[in-house]
Amino acid sequence: MNDHLSRKKQSRREFIQKTALAGAGASVLMSNPASLFANNSNSTNMEQNIKSKGYAAFDVSGKLRPWAFERRAVGDNDILIDVKYASICHSDIHQMKGHWGPQQYPQVPGHEIVGIVAAVGKNVTKFKVGDRAGVGCMVDSCMECNSCKHGEEQFCDKGETVFTYGFPEKSSPTGISQGGYSSSLVVRDHFAVHIPENISLQEAAPLLCAGITTYSPLMKANFKIGDKVGVAGIGGLGHMAVKLAVSKGAEVYAFTTTADKVDDIKSFGAKEVIVVNNDLSSLQAYAKTLDYMISTIPYEFNAAPYIICVKPGGTFTFVGMPVRSEITINNLMLAFARVNFNASLIGGIPETQEVVHYCADNQVHPQIEIISADQINEAWEKVINKEARYRYVIDAATF
Amino acid sequence: MNDHLSRKKQSRREFIQKTALAGAGASVLMSNPASLFANNSNSTNMEQNIKSKGYAAFDVSGKLRPWAFERRAVGDNDILIDVKYASICHSDIHQMKGHWGPQQYPQVPGHEIVGIVAAVGKNVTKFKVGDRAGVGCMVDSCMECNSCKHGEEQFCDKGETVFTYGFPEKSSPTGISQGGYSSSLVVRDHFAVHIPENISLQEAAPLLCAGITTYSPLMKANFKIGDKVGVAGIGGLGHMAVKLAVSKGAEVYAFTTTADKVDDIKSFGAKEVIVVNNDLSSLQAYAKTLDYMISTIPYEFNAAPYIICVKPGGTFTFVGMPVRSEITINNLMLAFARVNFNASLIGGIPETQEVVHYCADNQVHPQIEIISADQINEAWEKVINKEARYRYVIDAATF
Ligand SMILES: [Zn+2]
Ligand SMILES: [Zn+2]
Ligand SMILES: [Zn+2]
Ligand SMILES: [Zn+2]
Repeated sequence: MNDHLSRKKQSRREFIQKTALAGAGASVLMSNPASLFANNSNSTNMEQNIKSKGYAAFDVSGKLRPWAFERRAVGDNDILIDVKYASICHSDIHQMKGHWGPQQYPQVPGHEIVGIVAAVGKNVTKFKVGDRAGVGCMVDSCMECNSCKHGEEQFCDKGETVFTYGFPEKSSPTGISQGGYSSSLVVRDHFAVHIPENISLQEAAPLLCAGITTYSPLMKANFKIGDKVGVAGIGGLGHMAVKLAVSKGAEVYAFTTTADKVDDIKSFGAKEVIVVNNDLSSLQAYAKTLDYMISTIPYEFNAAPYIICVKPGGTFTFVGMPVRSEITINNLMLAFARVNFNASLIGGIPETQEVVHYCADNQVHPQIEIISADQINEAWEKVINKEARYRYVIDAATF
Repeated sequence: MNDHLSRKKQSRREFIQKTALAGAGASVLMSNPASLFANNSNSTNMEQNIKSKGYAAFDVSGKLRPWAFERRAVGDNDILIDVKYASICHSDIHQMKGHWGPQQYPQVPGHEIVGIVAAVGKNVTKFKVGDRAGVGCMVDSCMECNSCKHGEEQFCDKGETVFTYGFPEKSSPTGISQGGYSSSLVVRDHFAVHIPENISLQEAAPLLCAGITTYSPLMKANFKIGDKVGVAGIGGLGHMAVKLAVSKGAEVYAFTTTADKVDDIKSFGAKEVIVVNNDLSSLQAYAKTLDYMISTIPYEFNAAPYIICVKPGGTFTFVGMPVRSEITINNLMLAFARVNFNASLIGGIPETQEVVHYCADNQVHPQIEIISADQINEAWEKVINKEARYRYVIDAATF
């Protein structure tokens, strides 16, 4: 199943596994003995590219099919992750279909990735073989600039952030970063986070994008317990926003266009679920009622009727990336609404680690459905048609 | 010159002038004895419409010519202002030319208006005949709602704000509010502010729009002494923004497309004046340097290169009203910039009074040029061509 592990290339001299067994800890041993055994009984040639298999898009149709490819050899600061689960984000679909610009194909999407560390480079101290690890939207950056040093690697001052798929990356045999719909991943250690034992791997996967992308702006919004927080668009990101805001003590108002999500969303803890009708008139009753609002709607929409739901002086954050990545706002409307408007993009690595721990400790779990690789195309259609409930998680054993 | 004052219609029974002479105060008597004498020796029939003469637009050409019209009779809560000066705001031009929507003509523009109170309704206690008074962008609202009660009449919850010209107004004989390019104005007392003695009437005029429109967001920005404040667009509003921010202790960076304004702007106290070139590349050196930025650019422009001059976490306020009143922002750019974006619209009456006192007390004076009514059309052309330096003030004696 993990072909990079089944290769029995032998040169172990750079395979730094010294502390793997000793340091892995009893919980790892008990929770995943098979995996640990696998790591222990195989080896990774640290000088050779890693053979990986996954599902890739081959053109703007966005239809995925199996693809065998190579990743770079495990460098001194890298870890090799034996991917266990990768979940499906709406962004995967947008990017593969070229909505944000032309793409290089074949391209493997996926930036919600969890697995087990299978090898570590000689400089790596953050992980040991056998550790549970997760990777989100970034896999590298300069690591020297002010932003990188302060845990905002997505804003690397040198512009050297490498996003997880489709980004130019010299070290990659394909020339671009290749994502998580695959059996393995090589990533600079800093860009992987620990997945604690108190959450399942499959439930942790969606935290790496949907979790951090909503958690980061929600934390910056700095709302108080009992504040009214609106969430617009209740898909993968939105349902995490609801659960996180509820968990942080907000009174949550969820806005969805899908009537049959109402019961689910109430079960997530929302105080009210507003089914938004086509002409948006159902929003009027909420004018100036919310302290804060976050939109996760992943396409262009008429934002004004949502924005005016926020009280004057409040803030509206846009985390969905519309197709053309443009927001058009009537200036006069914005002036009358007196709402501060911003956009947010994922979150840094330390905060990604934080949200994983927070969700594990507070039982904030995404609602997931496990699928096999051959169901990906069908799942994408369901995501587009708003039929996902609420995150599809691909079992990497099926790649 | 003031025909509503020269009419010697006699019924004085409702002409509440009881306290005019007794209460006017020595400073008024000394500063403007002729005006006071005029008020005292004439009378206003409180039941008859007020004859006014001014300059009006008659179609979307935006060419103004003299027009005699009537204003409503002075109501119980109204004051009649003998207009002394009215200054020219870029908004006057936009609106008369139909840039913000179809207009009813003839329409008299002007929302920077100062003069002397010539009559007061029986309920009026705020003003006495002979007082110096100013009127800005609003002349009425419901006065009962939460916003109106809290000094934010421009945001009347009932939507009953009447802007100074071109707004439907039942009480007006012309059916719409008529602005300040005229010999007289009838306005609800609450919507006029006092012009203190320590500023000239002509220098006070521009404070009623240019002053308050920049002062209000600058105060909300809550910058600290020494903070770097950017001002984009140095015309009537922008030059006030520079002076106000300097006066409040900011280190001001002024962005202009007009190279020959540099010396002026430095004399206003700007720390640096950046001449913005056509491709906006001159902005690059200022990326992430400003704590706050305000744009007064009154047309649609590529906002992104300006927005990224603000430090992450800072705020960018848009006060210019572009032609179609729409702002288009690249969502991804906004996410990367981490700048909060908002728009601001004038300010409430209490804050308008505040800026007038602030500017009078701190010698924050607009740079003005007095013109006569027959120079208005020429002045408008100069405003459009960025040749105004920096506010044209019309001598109302010439209407
Ligand atoms: Zn995502
Ligand atoms: Zn960096
Ligand atoms: Zn104005
Ligand atoms: Zn009101």
